[in-house]
Amino acid sequence: MKITQFQDILRKKKVDFALIYNLDSLGHNPNFSYFTQYAGIGILIIPKSKQPFLLVPEMEYGRAKKSFKKTFKIKKKRLFEGVMERLRKNNIKTKKIAIDESSVTLRFNKALKKYFKNFKSVDISIDLLELRQIKDNNEINNTKKACRIADNIFNKTINNFKNFKTETHVAAFLEHETKKQGCDLSFPPIVASGKNASMPHHEPENTELKKGFCVIDYGIKYKGYCSDMTRTIYIGKPSEKEREIYNFILKVQEYTIKFTNKNNNCGKVYDFCVKSLKKYKDYFTHGLGHGVGVEIHELPNLTLSSKDKLKNTQHSQ
Amino acid sequence: MKITQFQDILRKKKVDFALIYNLDSLGHNPNFSYFTQYAGIGILIIPKSKQPFLLVPEMEYGRAKKSFKKTFKIKKKRLFEGVMERLRKNNIKTKKIAIDESSVTLRFNKALKKYFKNFKSVDISIDLLELRQIKDNNEINNTKKACRIADNIFNKTINNFKNFKTETHVAAFLEHETKKQGCDLSFPPIVASGKNASMPHHEPENTELKKGFCVIDYGIKYKGYCSDMTRTIYIGKPSEKEREIYNFILKVQEYTIKFTNKNNNCGKVYDFCVKSLKKYKDYFTHGLGHGVGVEIHELPNLTLSSKDKLKNTQHSQ
Repeated sequence: MKITQFQDILRKKKVDFALIYNLDSLGHNPNFSYFTQYAGIGILIIPKSKQPFLLVPEMEYGRAKKSFKKTFKIKKKRLFEGVMERLRKNNIKTKKIAIDESSVTLRFNKALKKYFKNFKSVDISIDLLELRQIKDNNEINNTKKACRIADNIFNKTINNFKNFKTETHVAAFLEHETKKQGCDLSFPPIVASGKNASMPHHEPENTELKKGFCVIDYGIKYKGYCSDMTRTIYIGKPSEKEREIYNFILKVQEYTIKFTNKNNNCGKVYDFCVKSLKKYKDYFTHGLGHGVGVEIHELPNLTLSSKDKLKNTQHSQ
Repeated sequence: MKITQFQDILRKKKVDFALIYNLDSLGHNPNFSYFTQYAGIGILIIPKSKQPFLLVPEMEYGRAKKSFKKTFKIKKKRLFEGVMERLRKNNIKTKKIAIDESSVTLRFNKALKKYFKNFKSVDISIDLLELRQIKDNNEINNTKKACRIADNIFNKTINNFKNFKTETHVAAFLEHETKKQGCDLSFPPIVASGKNASMPHHEPENTELKKGFCVIDYGIKYKGYCSDMTRTIYIGKPSEKEREIYNFILKVQEYTIKFTNKNNNCGKVYDFCVKSLKKYKDYFTHGLGHGVGVEIHELPNLTLSSKDKLKNTQHSQ
């Protein structure tokens, strides 16, 4: 279990516990939902050895309890008092606390300082990212399922394509089909036709689909795990030149994937790809790829001078 | 313009500039999109007197520029250097910087300290919330439009209700209709039937809609402005007792709305409502209401002992 592995890290760092929270009813702290499978408001305490527990406002109790068994109610206006009480009851010290500096805000930190006087904080943001990088079988299966569902919906979208008039139509269809499967989107779909196809993060527009290349960037979440795929289609009939460019890029992609079998250094994989793009390399303003998980972007990063390593999950478990 | 009003605050606080950022491609910092009308990655600098400018990674430039004219490119891996350069070019001092402590993370703050040596930071989180509380005519019109669109979609949903089998079906329909209008949801719709109707933040389930009360909590965003409505319908035929309870709650709501004409103290309005609920008051675990704007929850809060004031926008402009 990932919590056991995480507690190994906490013991190595000699902290009393880790505190991971989400106080924004619409915001998701991926580290929080990673451990709790619950995406509402709450504070998760993971002691270095004892059983972790989740504290949530009364109104969220029913929902939280479904996902995380050891859940207790606290008063929304007395969050920190509630945390303190529960820690005291469990005989957990508050001298050295692990926090995720990439999600803890200055305001929350002020409150921590007020209630947990004289504590020392230790940043575990990188540890969490690294822990999440290596997926267990369950996570891999959820990710595969997410990819399969997205792939099916994408095919259905293509078969329906003649019915779409605007980019937003396509995006709405992708989203609706996703929801009908009981899944969520990993991110708002990108549908970029005509000139827009060259803008990697284009927002779909309510104007007519234009002829030419159309880039569709779409992913779904299955049991909290994200898929992410970018596919390029063509609306109309491509010219000889356009076919050539498409096939050239496709080959670069295939070569690059093969290259990862020989080289696990992400920066080098990126370099290889950029070099292979030859005269087109200046148009490549986007990263080459990234890990997926409870977040759409996880380690490793396949970008310029990335020092991340590709790891074979089968070997690393 | 809201930026002019905000600069008045900055001058009062004698800061050199305010720095508001969003570095999470999926996360939205409402204060950032409030001023920029752009929801991607970037750093916004609002000097106390000079013209504000937005710095975004190259890949986001096209999209950002559409929403915010004074936009410049910076290298994603050299964000802070880019900000420094631009500030220097504009002769803007970096001695006293206004930041929003409710969104600035410890990690970002560390980076700030590294680049802007010896600066003093001033928290403007409350000022921003208060500034956003009072809407101008344009904001009011966008909110009204959001309410109207949501109301129409809700009616369409009710007319279609016989075709829905599960809570997720209803939620997916609401969402799809929203997207077809080119709008976004303010939050994932809540459709809670049967026993679920008593859980204020229930997540729709893929099980059959149950007979009895069904609470639908739904809102959309129009030009960035949120609507938020909760409506209770009944599936099947309510008993005499159920009708009674429904009508009782409806009257409490109507009385409470009338009460706001006499009393603008949000805590008192809440108290009035709770008292009016009489023997049912213990079931009321949710707040009574809240402002809406670029965020679904804005000031004022109608909760227990809230000190917020209801303000008549016509008078306060």
